[in-house]
Amino acid sequence: MRKACIYPGTFDPITNGHLDVIKRARTFFDKVVIAIAVNSTKNPFFDIDDRIKMVKKATIHLSNIEVVSFDNLLIDFAKKRNIPTIIRGLRAVSDFEYELQMGYANASLWDELETVYLMPSLKSAFISSSVVRSIFYHGGDISHLVPKEILPLPKFKKDKNVDHL
Amino acid sequence: MRKACIYPGTFDPITNGHLDVIKRARTFFDKVVIAIAVNSTKNPFFDIDDRIKMVKKATIHLSNIEVVSFDNLLIDFAKKRNIPTIIRGLRAVSDFEYELQMGYANASLWDELETVYLMPSLKSAFISSSVVRSIFYHGGDISHLVPKEILPLPKFKKDKNVDHL
Amino acid sequence: MRKACIYPGTFDPITNGHLDVIKRARTFFDKVVIAIAVNSTKNPFFDIDDRIKMVKKATIHLSNIEVVSFDNLLIDFAKKRNIPTIIRGLRAVSDFEYELQMGYANASLWDELETVYLMPSLKSAFISSSVVRSIFYHGGDISHLVPKEILPLPKFKKDKNVDHL
Amino acid sequence: MRKACIYPGTFDPITNGHLDVIKRARTFFDKVVIAIAVNSTKNPFFDIDDRIKMVKKATIHLSNIEVVSFDNLLIDFAKKRNIPTIIRGLRAVSDFEYELQMGYANASLWDELETVYLMPSLKSAFISSSVVRSIFYHGGDISHLVPKEILPLPKFKKDKNVDHL
Amino acid sequence: MRKACIYPGTFDPITNGHLDVIKRARTFFDKVVIAIAVNSTKNPFFDIDDRIKMVKKATIHLSNIEVVSFDNLLIDFAKKRNIPTIIRGLRAVSDFEYELQMGYANASLWDELETVYLMPSLKSAFISSSVVRSIFYHGGDISHLVPKEILPLPKFKKDKNVDHL
Amino acid sequence: MRKACIYPGTFDPITNGHLDVIKRARTFFDKVVIAIAVNSTKNPFFDIDDRIKMVKKATIHLSNIEVVSFDNLLIDFAKKRNIPTIIRGLRAVSDFEYELQMGYANASLWDELETVYLMPSLKSAFISSSVVRSIFYHGGDISHLVPKEILPLPKFKKDKNVDHL
Repeated sequence: MRKACIYPGTFDPITNGHLDVIKRARTFFDKVVIAIAVNSTKNPFFDIDDRIKMVKKATIHLSNIEVVSFDNLLIDFAKKRNIPTIIRGLRAVSDFEYELQMGYANASLWDELETVYLMPSLKSAFISSSVVRSIFYHGGDISHLVPKEILPLPKFKKDKNVDHL
Repeated sequence: MRKACIYPGTFDPITNGHLDVIKRARTFFDKVVIAIAVNSTKNPFFDIDDRIKMVKKATIHLSNIEVVSFDNLLIDFAKKRNIPTIIRGLRAVSDFEYELQMGYANASLWDELETVYLMPSLKSAFISSSVVRSIFYHGGDISHLVPKEILPLPKFKKDKNVDHL
Repeated sequence: MRKACIYPGTFDPITNGHLDVIKRARTFFDKVVIAIAVNSTKNPFFDIDDRIKMVKKATIHLSNIEVVSFDNLLIDFAKKRNIPTIIRGLRAVSDFEYELQMGYANASLWDELETVYLMPSLKSAFISSSVVRSIFYHGGDISHLVPKEILPLPKFKKDKNVDHL
Repeated sequence: MRKACIYPGTFDPITNGHLDVIKRARTFFDKVVIAIAVNSTKNPFFDIDDRIKMVKKATIHLSNIEVVSFDNLLIDFAKKRNIPTIIRGLRAVSDFEYELQMGYANASLWDELETVYLMPSLKSAFISSSVVRSIFYHGGDISHLVPKEILPLPKFKKDKNVDHL
Repeated sequence: MRKACIYPGTFDPITNGHLDVIKRARTFFDKVVIAIAVNSTKNPFFDIDDRIKMVKKATIHLSNIEVVSFDNLLIDFAKKRNIPTIIRGLRAVSDFEYELQMGYANASLWDELETVYLMPSLKSAFISSSVVRSIFYHGGDISHLVPKEILPLPKFKKDKNVDHL
Repeated sequence: MRKACIYPGTFDPITNGHLDVIKRARTFFDKVVIAIAVNSTKNPFFDIDDRIKMVKKATIHLSNIEVVSFDNLLIDFAKKRNIPTIIRGLRAVSDFEYELQMGYANASLWDELETVYLMPSLKSAFISSSVVRSIFYHGGDISHLVPKEILPLPKFKKDKNVDHL
């Protein structure tokens, strides 16, 4: 029986949508390992230490959660931890095809790997880290989009693209 | 912890894609209840007794499987069985938006309900009961699309729409 | 300046999603003509008189609304009324491509015709008449999906396809 | 080298979009076999004799065209004719995923089969037989949507679903 | 009644598709405020002064148009101008899901905000600023894609990604 | 009759999916010109000389193939070669709408141009150059994703974005 799962992502920053998925995952698994991709080639908005701190703050009240970072292939991280189960959120407004492509690519690298897709609640359906970053960058209100424990957000890098929405 | 799940569908007939999802679901749950919708208003191709028999034959070698039919709302069936967990397959070539609509509709009827989406293997990605019906109706080979245990397929009703593919 | 608009549909039955679109349309136009397609070839669940009554009940508290039925081409109805403006709701979970196809088809029939797409609120994003019919047929609770003024729903025809969800 | 192709469909009725695809196909192949599915289970709007006549009229000025009907699996028809090449039109506003599903299903039945997708011109992107039927049923103008050679359209069956658009 | 609307974008550069939407918007509203996002983090191809000039040239023959730039959140710009109405074009070939995400995000920031989606004419359905930039960068003909008033286009920055199409 | 075709792309690097499309294209055309976009503004992972070498190695056993690079508009390259036929692969998991946009844009630049879409085999449906780059960058196994003739891959530039999958 699959008892643990990995919830990977950049968490740049963690949103209420992520937290919703984490809470749902906990009803299926004894342990949820939140794996934060360092993603150095993608130049995240917040640096890895701040992203780790934010995820820890947002999940401190939840049991059976582990927060770690990784900088290799997800599949190699999963193998090393011997956890062949990945959790992903599927937003109503999201890149479903991208998820499938990643899922099939990962399955081609490790036979035992299984990806489980969960649907966040409808009210989180439009929330993405990218939306949060754009609003935050321009000084707008993000308190309804992220866990209150991570407010105020830390300093960010200036050179990341943001939208005006 | 969620220990059991319901895998609902019309199974008209059960395909290798369904069986693939069932096998994956068994690695997450102690029990998988396969719930076959009678669907009398939709006029299935095979009658309910035959559809039950086919699913039972196809899963007889698997433990911890229960095969039942239901003719009410899925949510009412799930409540009666006290199993608030639904499993659905997400095919690369499928109606993702339809799945989301059903998922949100069901969630609006029962707060505790959770729908889990699994991805069948790539080689099942194009298989649907509708494709099987169309090929079978016209006398084509379906032995690579359905579990061998259900062959030969039972008689069907003449008036169901089929494609020429 | 375009002062009036037509909101066409089958309204089988009217839902909270429809009502949301109607209320939004009223902030743009002096008059909203709700045009209910008789749709005799499509065999609606509720008969046309009941569908008209339900829409009237649901909108009775709103000013500047007209409720009518039509049984010809939408474009001919619009021409006869001399209202070259159509309103359509775009649900997060909907058939966007179907809407575009209808929009371009209608534009090919009348140059002046303009279709305006409005987005219902997120909480209505999954509601469709089809979801309502399926839940209602099986005796489930629909009070959060339709305007309370139309409850209880009238009798329906038995032979319309419904889902178990 | 693949010298001939099959262009399958219901052609209920043939549209300018179909004709556009046929003309493009002729620039790639020495012969285009237009294969009209009898589709008796789907209850077409026009009967098979009328659909054949319309396609013949619309293509009479084109060389290297053959018009036939078939009532078995497309793959069996293609094998019998020894033409392992299918042509399909991909409209901007169309069911791309359905096409892929059919393509993979057919490929699973005959290894040599290849499906080629062509894009009709932008001005045909919204035209479908279904749109034509709906407009025609309600007495609207379809002369910009179908080849002029097939006008006036023949009588149709009353019981096919049509939209009001 | 909503009398004015904001049409936001990067307009890098303005295309015939944009102009088509602007003309349609003018039939619904007494005033159309074209709001050009400075978008300094996104490194536009043309600088903001040139983008403003191009939009002004392209719309100089239209009444009731205002052209301005903004560099904050769209919602803050809209609040400051007290215009809670946004216009967006929906191309047949476009990112509909992205539009919905932005629409819901903006609605979460200002209750009164309404986004109206208009469909440009079919012949503009494939035109985007990105397509124009790619063709222009490589010295191709763009005269059928942009308003003739903005030709020849001004100098651009060398470092923006372009396609070969 | 169209005897030759151009298969354009960045081939950064060539994958089994590309090779599958090339082999299929050869059954339709006497000659396949593989046109590798230099794409200097997009900063490819592998430099143009290495990309050319890889494509040549992967196709050396195939007759009637020509491998060239181009750095202008595809349409200008195609005109210069007098080959008005483009081949593109359509993956089950891909950006179909992007393909259509490019197809219509190119058709607007050259009337005679025709784009033909082929479907790679199901087992290649998830393979993209981007997936290969991400796995390769992190030292994972790519031998099932690319032609064996190009292994080991050449050195790459460090600054290209990659995923962790």
